[in-house]
Amino acid sequence: MTTTGLTNDVSLDVVADLAAQLRVDSIRSSTSAGSGHPTSSMSAADLLAVLVTRHLRYDWDEPRAPANDHLIFSKGHASPLLYSVFKAVGAVSEEELLNGYRRFGQRLEGHPTPVLPWVDVATGSLGQGLPDAVGVALAGRYLERLPYRAWTLCGDSELAEGSIWEALDKASYYKLANLIAIIDVNRLGQRGATDLGWDTAAYAERAMAFGAHTIEIDGHDLSVIDHAFVEAASNVAGDKPTVIIAKTIKGKGFSEVEDSPDWHGKPFPPDMADRAIAELGGLRNLVIRGPHPDPAEPGPALEHPSTLPQQPGDHPQPSKDWPEYKTGEKVATRKAYGDALVALGARDDKVVALDGEVSNSTYAFEFARAFPERYFEMFIAEQQMVAAATGLAVRGYKAFASTFAAFLTRAYDFIRMGAISGVDLRLVGSHAGVEIGADGPSQMALEDLAMMRAVHGSTVLYPADGTSTAALVAAMADTPGISYMRTTRGNYPGLYDNGEAFPVGGSKTLRSTATDQVTLIGAGVTLHECLRAADRLAADGITARVIDCYSVKPIDTGALTAAVTDTAGRLVVAEDHHPEGGLGSAVADALLAAGQRDFRLTRLAVREMPGSGTGEELMAWAGIDAEHIADAARQLTSEP
Amino acid sequence: MTTTGLTNDVSLDVVADLAAQLRVDSIRSSTSAGSGHPTSSMSAADLLAVLVTRHLRYDWDEPRAPANDHLIFSKGHASPLLYSVFKAVGAVSEEELLNGYRRFGQRLEGHPTPVLPWVDVATGSLGQGLPDAVGVALAGRYLERLPYRAWTLCGDSELAEGSIWEALDKASYYKLANLIAIIDVNRLGQRGATDLGWDTAAYAERAMAFGAHTIEIDGHDLSVIDHAFVEAASNVAGDKPTVIIAKTIKGKGFSEVEDSPDWHGKPFPPDMADRAIAELGGLRNLVIRGPHPDPAEPGPALEHPSTLPQQPGDHPQPSKDWPEYKTGEKVATRKAYGDALVALGARDDKVVALDGEVSNSTYAFEFARAFPERYFEMFIAEQQMVAAATGLAVRGYKAFASTFAAFLTRAYDFIRMGAISGVDLRLVGSHAGVEIGADGPSQMALEDLAMMRAVHGSTVLYPADGTSTAALVAAMADTPGISYMRTTRGNYPGLYDNGEAFPVGGSKTLRSTATDQVTLIGAGVTLHECLRAADRLAADGITARVIDCYSVKPIDTGALTAAVTDTAGRLVVAEDHHPEGGLGSAVADALLAAGQRDFRLTRLAVREMPGSGTGEELMAWAGIDAEHIADAARQLTSEP
Repeated sequence: MTTTGLTNDVSLDVVADLAAQLRVDSIRSSTSAGSGHPTSSMSAADLLAVLVTRHLRYDWDEPRAPANDHLIFSKGHASPLLYSVFKAVGAVSEEELLNGYRRFGQRLEGHPTPVLPWVDVATGSLGQGLPDAVGVALAGRYLERLPYRAWTLCGDSELAEGSIWEALDKASYYKLANLIAIIDVNRLGQRGATDLGWDTAAYAERAMAFGAHTIEIDGHDLSVIDHAFVEAASNVAGDKPTVIIAKTIKGKGFSEVEDSPDWHGKPFPPDMADRAIAELGGLRNLVIRGPHPDPAEPGPALEHPSTLPQQPGDHPQPSKDWPEYKTGEKVATRKAYGDALVALGARDDKVVALDGEVSNSTYAFEFARAFPERYFEMFIAEQQMVAAATGLAVRGYKAFASTFAAFLTRAYDFIRMGAISGVDLRLVGSHAGVEIGADGPSQMALEDLAMMRAVHGSTVLYPADGTSTAALVAAMADTPGISYMRTTRGNYPGLYDNGEAFPVGGSKTLRSTATDQVTLIGAGVTLHECLRAADRLAADGITARVIDCYSVKPIDTGALTAAVTDTAGRLVVAEDHHPEGGLGSAVADALLAAGQRDFRLTRLAVREMPGSGTGEELMAWAGIDAEHIADAARQLTSEP
Repeated sequence: MTTTGLTNDVSLDVVADLAAQLRVDSIRSSTSAGSGHPTSSMSAADLLAVLVTRHLRYDWDEPRAPANDHLIFSKGHASPLLYSVFKAVGAVSEEELLNGYRRFGQRLEGHPTPVLPWVDVATGSLGQGLPDAVGVALAGRYLERLPYRAWTLCGDSELAEGSIWEALDKASYYKLANLIAIIDVNRLGQRGATDLGWDTAAYAERAMAFGAHTIEIDGHDLSVIDHAFVEAASNVAGDKPTVIIAKTIKGKGFSEVEDSPDWHGKPFPPDMADRAIAELGGLRNLVIRGPHPDPAEPGPALEHPSTLPQQPGDHPQPSKDWPEYKTGEKVATRKAYGDALVALGARDDKVVALDGEVSNSTYAFEFARAFPERYFEMFIAEQQMVAAATGLAVRGYKAFASTFAAFLTRAYDFIRMGAISGVDLRLVGSHAGVEIGADGPSQMALEDLAMMRAVHGSTVLYPADGTSTAALVAAMADTPGISYMRTTRGNYPGLYDNGEAFPVGGSKTLRSTATDQVTLIGAGVTLHECLRAADRLAADGITARVIDCYSVKPIDTGALTAAVTDTAGRLVVAEDHHPEGGLGSAVADALLAAGQRDFRLTRLAVREMPGSGTGEELMAWAGIDAEHIADAARQLTSEP
């Protein structure tokens, strides 16, 4: 092992001084704020001092420089350390560190978020930074072919999260040698010892078994740390991620609290802070920057692991032509998703796709076959799938991630954090609701619309036919924030002419006369039931308006309020979803928010626990089929 | 290794015959249904034939016999195999297998659920059966002290789920030698090869690194399988879970489909089924039962791993006295949760608690100190926490599981599956909403009420003071299904006299006169803001009714409709939650469902992305504090 060419020329004596400064500043910032995690910062201060002075290649004046390394604090509660690093490189002032940390309206939040230009992703829900870094590393290795590394600081406590092992599994599968995880094994969690304590060998065994190049070190020996980073950087030429397991001491540097289980997440009172700062050698104001990014041209992409069995006709010249569907002809919206994704991919090389090992069900496989180099199979690891999409979004890719809608519940914490990260994520859930039939309730998403509507700034789409699905897939590519599309298992007839526009926030009125007596509102599978119900009602002499609420959030308030006015306030909404938080709630919320009072809204939804059956049987059982919709409409029109 | 005393006397020749029957019946049932996973069943048929004839100790006439072993199909899609096993032991008829599988109104659902008396938990969302089994094994080892084993069949694909590794981490930490995982490594997932294929050594390395006793076998060699199960059973005396890694062939026994990637989740057409059955030696109707449960008396409990640093005053004689709080005196509802849980634990030894490494924040540590033998630290593994609670519930324990409310989003798929499993789970989320202040948005649950309301049959509680919290903790102990309580970080004044009743589905009207002009509705932190707002309004001569909606689901429709009538339809609801799916939605839904039309509901909620700050600053910023509530009320009362 040599350090030539790989490290900067900051001497380890200076690094030691900087490490003390990082500790002192972690203490000062948290004490000034009256909250925060100084001891969790102090354990990792030596690691960060060596990293930022000698290994992290980063142009602090240009945080968006393409070849910058990435620095992700998976242990987001060590924010005092991260912000002290930002001060040490001259990016954040002492004034901001001492008066801005954890204060209202300031950007040095309790846990890092990308309101700071040097932060890629929000962390603070543990076990997410490393999975996110996998996405960044995938972009670097397979798409951008840039020499940046993704350095990720993890806590030892968070290694109890399964998502960390999903991340290492994918990192080794995809040979992400540009991913370097540094585990700060300070042995103590919030309420006491971790389950493995200082058994760094056990961590190493696990990381190795998951395919990582593993280095065990003393996390307070600067020279040893430096050598480990050199080794990790050398390994970047290889085909394994590196995991550095650093044995550290929580609160290191202040003897009163070192290795104490009683000082997690507590700032030191001012008198203790004074003693700690004195023990650490007092205040310092070093400003030191490490190496600049490697200006290398993009190199060759790594050979992409084959994830799909090769088939005749693979890798065709994908067409940029937009998919077209005939009205009346049956197609599944999941198929239209796949078709549109391919056309989108042909038009925009920033479009990438991921799937959770069900691409032949979600139709993501069409994209995988057309653009294998832009498709990332995440196997059955939905958390990692969303995290990888998040990391790819950090690098500017338009990531579409798909699985069965029910299994997106597995990744809810990651979706929520994606919103806080401010990334644009495009999630697609197929096989939703009781309509899927025989597989039974474990596979039936009946909470997904509620879950996705409750995400800040989200967009929720649920199209009913191929044409509208394809148009909305295109819309998602340009939709900021978290967007979600629910697709359907079964084949349903096309409703719209090709070329028709489907703006997000819009709706379509499929049946309408000057004398409508009642409005039927559906989306996805229930829209087809509404249309059938309207036919039945027509036979009874009742004219029904039918609205396709393909945009569940934002919803077309104008069309809904017009329906209230035009159809004497009589509305029926049917959804293949539990009654809470889905389409019915969206309609009710919109009408009430618009000040509508004179309406009666009958809400049909899945109110009992389903079993197996055919889709038709189950929709009838749930009371969301044409017959029940027609009955509800008859009831409304028969009332005074 | 000997087989004496551990195995039954069914010869391996007969076992081989039975294995063929299980394959044939898996084919027949799925072909008859027109859907299902025959090939995923056939790979594991030999494993199950040996297990049920010679190792699984189970009284099929008494599925609730306490000492019965447990058989959990973590790969729930192999339901044809499971149901064929039920036929082979005479529990299910051939008629039911052939005419009931995956049919409407029948109990042989597409994926197993506990509508069948021999099924413990619903599976079908992969990576959940093994975590659930950890809960069952915890009960056997630490609480019931019964000699049963939890045999769990896993697929290889599902080993990509991090939850599997959370499970093995806890299984080894808790020395669950009564847990035996059998991994059916047939190398093929739904859309092609798994990431590790047939690299059984890699799986073994991972399982070993996670602390399991690991056995690699040929999953089609009956004698080898038998020896592995003997070894696993012998290991039950030890201190490690066993993981048996069985190399198998998907579709084994029918040469046309063996090891083919094209036959996942597809029934054979009738002609193929005929050829398969012929190749497998035709129909059989063997009925064979294996050994009976060990009638042993409860043995000694395993020594419980210490999870909390010992403190003076630990292990006191916990009082059965119900905690009492003075009105006006400030207490955090999370503290009242801990207090009530201890009192409940003293009265009912079926009460157990789990926490995700934040027990000093949730106050679950009070229970952990009082009843260490009934407390299970799950570290930072929320999925496993909910799964362990599920497994403990299977064994009849009243499990309370707590963490920060935000982090329950991590376990949403497990919560959803818990509802399908029909277990009673009591979940408690602390530190919700912007009220937590400085830690920032990653720690702020703002989707939890929406998420929990959308779960089938759930109960959602959000008390505002210590007395109501304690009463509702007691109510949760007797509440079926998934119940959720949101607790609060800060200290708030007591509102209610001790002994007051707080029925689930009720509410409290805290301010009321004969001439109320407007109603203010809050829960938790916003209730205190409503009370302050009412004071301000009173100063302006506006009399406001104040309702404590501590029961968000079910909600007190009667109190809400009375408020509409009494206060001229003027309502303000404030919640520390996103506007979708929470308290405001619950109120709107209830009023509309009750046929109320003449009301105006102003909904105050968190509509933008918060940062750090004090709780007061952030509630003011979000527009959910007393001032904004009072303003909204003034606005309503000033309108005609």
